[in-house]
Amino acid sequence: MKKQHVSEAVIRRLPRYYRYLGDLQAKGIVRISSNSLGSRMGITASQIRQDLSCFGEFGQQGYGYNVKELQTEIGHILGIENRHSIIVVGVGNLGHALMQNFHFAEIGFSLDAAFDVSPSLVGTTVNGVLVRDMEELDAYCRDHLPDVAVLTVPQSAAQPITNRLVALGVRGFWNFTNKEISSDSADIQVESVHFADSLLTLSYRISKR
Amino acid sequence: MKKQHVSEAVIRRLPRYYRYLGDLQAKGIVRISSNSLGSRMGITASQIRQDLSCFGEFGQQGYGYNVKELQTEIGHILGIENRHSIIVVGVGNLGHALMQNFHFAEIGFSLDAAFDVSPSLVGTTVNGVLVRDMEELDAYCRDHLPDVAVLTVPQSAAQPITNRLVALGVRGFWNFTNKEISSDSADIQVESVHFADSLLTLSYRISKR
Repeated sequence: MKKQHVSEAVIRRLPRYYRYLGDLQAKGIVRISSNSLGSRMGITASQIRQDLSCFGEFGQQGYGYNVKELQTEIGHILGIENRHSIIVVGVGNLGHALMQNFHFAEIGFSLDAAFDVSPSLVGTTVNGVLVRDMEELDAYCRDHLPDVAVLTVPQSAAQPITNRLVALGVRGFWNFTNKEISSDSADIQVESVHFADSLLTLSYRISKR
Repeated sequence: MKKQHVSEAVIRRLPRYYRYLGDLQAKGIVRISSNSLGSRMGITASQIRQDLSCFGEFGQQGYGYNVKELQTEIGHILGIENRHSIIVVGVGNLGHALMQNFHFAEIGFSLDAAFDVSPSLVGTTVNGVLVRDMEELDAYCRDHLPDVAVLTVPQSAAQPITNRLVALGVRGFWNFTNKEISSDSADIQVESVHFADSLLTLSYRISKR
């Protein structure tokens, strides 16, 4: 599959397609038209067809999409089968909550290790994953080369830890620090979760009336 | 200020403008052109001008935008001055993390109460906020009518708690349950934080090569 340039907006919609198609499957729905999928998702049918056309041909005129097949294809595009390895750096409340409740494996990630500085946490396990001492981070990364680090450290540690992990070969960062992180390496991908952006859109909507 | 119809995409960009303008202020930058702001944010100058034109006239030809003024205006559009009241429902790891680390007040929210079923949590305070028994939820909401509920309850409780809160007059929901919630009331606004969507976009980006 040859990929053309895919816009940020399309990339952001792919996981939503994946999620909605999963919900449809859970409801036992086998096929769906782009109109019907679009109306559930609040986008137009032509938007869906245009988005998917970036990646190939999907669905059949007059039939629509096979829900399971399309979800599998989109999962493939998203790299779910790659079984990316991921580590959690910082096991405070948020890191702990993600380890306990977030289903990494369901979207193709293997949560392999966690790190913290606190002696009261090091050596414990959360949801079956051992919390290691931050001093072991370098050796661990050299041995296992994880694909992604979840950054749930204090803000002041965000950039220094990022630099350290980049030097160790980690190229994906899931950043929860509410601080922008950056790197000179072109190869680095950062996805930041900005809670404030989310709550502010809600503020806008409830302020409108 | 008369508001025209504002698209979802524009609404989603407003908090980002707000955040970038705050960062610029913190760096002591007083004014900025739409070109320069756009290149920092990865969008075009004409996109910025078009977005802002939904809400009025901002900036001056040849001068650009006054950073502080524009941030204040966008904060106003987002309803930051409304001092919305917010309660946390479910003080597990995630609820606790938000109460401890998220700066509600900085974006105009007043975190007034939290609720949980666990006897070991009820009566404790987190970051100065009392955790109350879920049995007090109805009486509290009738007395204080909070604007927004943060839903950090288990998935099975998501919809029942939503129904209960809607009946009590709560109209805004910041939903962390990874489950879609809905309501028959037209007036209800739900903002869901989908962690999986975020991590899947990162999966896509690191899978591309």
